[in-house]
Amino acid sequence: MAQEREKFLRQQSCPAKFSEVEAALGKFVEEQRQFQRKIVLVTSGGTAVPLESRTVRFIDNFSIGTRGASSTEYFLQEGYAVIFLNRDRSLKPFQRHFSHQNMLDLLHLDLETNSTSVKKEYESKVSRIVQRYTKCKEQNQLLSIEFQTLGEYLTYLQACATALRPLGSNAMLYLAAAVSDFYIPKEQMPEHKIQSSDGPIQLSLQLVPKMLEPLVSEWVPEAFTVSFKLETDKDLLVPKAKQALEKYKHQMVIANVLETRKREVTLITSQFSFPINLTAEEISRGVEIEERIVQQLKLKHCEFCEKNIPQ
Amino acid sequence: MAQEREKFLRQQSCPAKFSEVEAALGKFVEEQRQFQRKIVLVTSGGTAVPLESRTVRFIDNFSIGTRGASSTEYFLQEGYAVIFLNRDRSLKPFQRHFSHQNMLDLLHLDLETNSTSVKKEYESKVSRIVQRYTKCKEQNQLLSIEFQTLGEYLTYLQACATALRPLGSNAMLYLAAAVSDFYIPKEQMPEHKIQSSDGPIQLSLQLVPKMLEPLVSEWVPEAFTVSFKLETDKDLLVPKAKQALEKYKHQMVIANVLETRKREVTLITSQFSFPINLTAEEISRGVEIEERIVQQLKLKHCEFCEKNIPQ
Repeated sequence: MAQEREKFLRQQSCPAKFSEVEAALGKFVEEQRQFQRKIVLVTSGGTAVPLESRTVRFIDNFSIGTRGASSTEYFLQEGYAVIFLNRDRSLKPFQRHFSHQNMLDLLHLDLETNSTSVKKEYESKVSRIVQRYTKCKEQNQLLSIEFQTLGEYLTYLQACATALRPLGSNAMLYLAAAVSDFYIPKEQMPEHKIQSSDGPIQLSLQLVPKMLEPLVSEWVPEAFTVSFKLETDKDLLVPKAKQALEKYKHQMVIANVLETRKREVTLITSQFSFPINLTAEEISRGVEIEERIVQQLKLKHCEFCEKNIPQ
Repeated sequence: MAQEREKFLRQQSCPAKFSEVEAALGKFVEEQRQFQRKIVLVTSGGTAVPLESRTVRFIDNFSIGTRGASSTEYFLQEGYAVIFLNRDRSLKPFQRHFSHQNMLDLLHLDLETNSTSVKKEYESKVSRIVQRYTKCKEQNQLLSIEFQTLGEYLTYLQACATALRPLGSNAMLYLAAAVSDFYIPKEQMPEHKIQSSDGPIQLSLQLVPKMLEPLVSEWVPEAFTVSFKLETDKDLLVPKAKQALEKYKHQMVIANVLETRKREVTLITSQFSFPINLTAEEISRGVEIEERIVQQLKLKHCEFCEKNIPQ
């Protein structure tokens, strides 16, 4: 198992920006420690799995990173510093509030003064969000790192976890990214684009080794680690969550079903199951379930820190 | 072949917004005809191919729709009306100029007046683009239609082509979308998310029937139709482009290689090959190759219209 994992990680080429990212990570963690802030690593969005070496095609998943982007805002609100490890072109904290809009539609050009400002009808929404965004930038509370492929994600995940190790139990990992279960090994990948003229094709997908194992046992063993379980089949959820907790020995699984994930999740630890549901009234008021999740996690993380001697 | 195609199209479920889109299309085409504008259908971005019925995973390709989004702006500039059939979350005309930026970073909140405006250093860029965007909106020159899956793309493509038929040779089709060559037939798709506990998996991908054939021969036979050929292997380009022209009998193939596609393309018709190259100097000045492509196409389309009696 460990051997397989090592082989898999060796196969991944190093992201072009790796040393730049590593330096930024070190600096960010150091600054947060000076402020005595807790740090949460939020992973977000799906990972792409290349089907060809010079990649034209890849396997992807539907995740656009709603959970990760909104949770990040609530963690910031609760005083955490956040390392936001996210898929390129997935939703970003703050910007996500405009994802269904064309930002250009919010702007008005005054032809006389040739200056551009936000249209009256959008002013209050825009200024509310710009204010929160500016505050988090000024306080240097957020570090964003982007990945595209599974290999990039795993390389950065290891780097982030390792950087967080010195924080001991003050670090939280909130692994909301939808990581691919399958991949095509390099030696089986064609170099050039697969030709449709070759007719129907067979793809043989191998299992991606589970990185939660080395993450919990080696990379960042004292942290408070939360993983996610998303299924389309409700009956599989709780047994699979319990199974994961036993196997990887981390602190919590957040279980959710594809169709109801925005109003219903269950926080599962080895001791308890804690359901969080939004009422129809709350949903209509625009309450987001991530606010509730983060509030619960903050409490659980506090208890965890008190039980464990911080370094 | 036609049978296979019919079967494939029947398998695709109708997009939820189909009748809404169809009505908007009819209205748009009618208005443009009153203005006697030529209309180009620009397709843009990649198509997702689901691996499961309740889709968690899909096969995708790297395209983010740069070619389609920038070409759309140049077609608008040249006086065309544009139907922009594009992948959700791909690049959009005008907005694309800010795709590497967080739009929130462009804004400044004045806490005294509580109003938000564009920061001084970005004003000239933002107002230039807002001005062009506003003009095209006021003149009702652009209709945007979004798709995600291959099935949605093909359903909308047929609807767009059919709507353009009354224009005769005044319609252009600029098929820049990166359409998947392979798919998994519905009857072979699992309903629920594929479980990693089931071990490695085999995927058997079938060929997607080529829709360029019915498009040219049935849906919109009098239009000026331009398809794209993208390869990673340069030697395959020209022979494959010529092959496509002979087979589908449309007007032009734009051939390009993955690595050099932003500075080098070749326009290929049954009579000639016309290379377009940007010099290093032009690239450094920010010239986009799509401007040149669109200028050439406008000329060729004019010649084509003169040879063919418009309806």
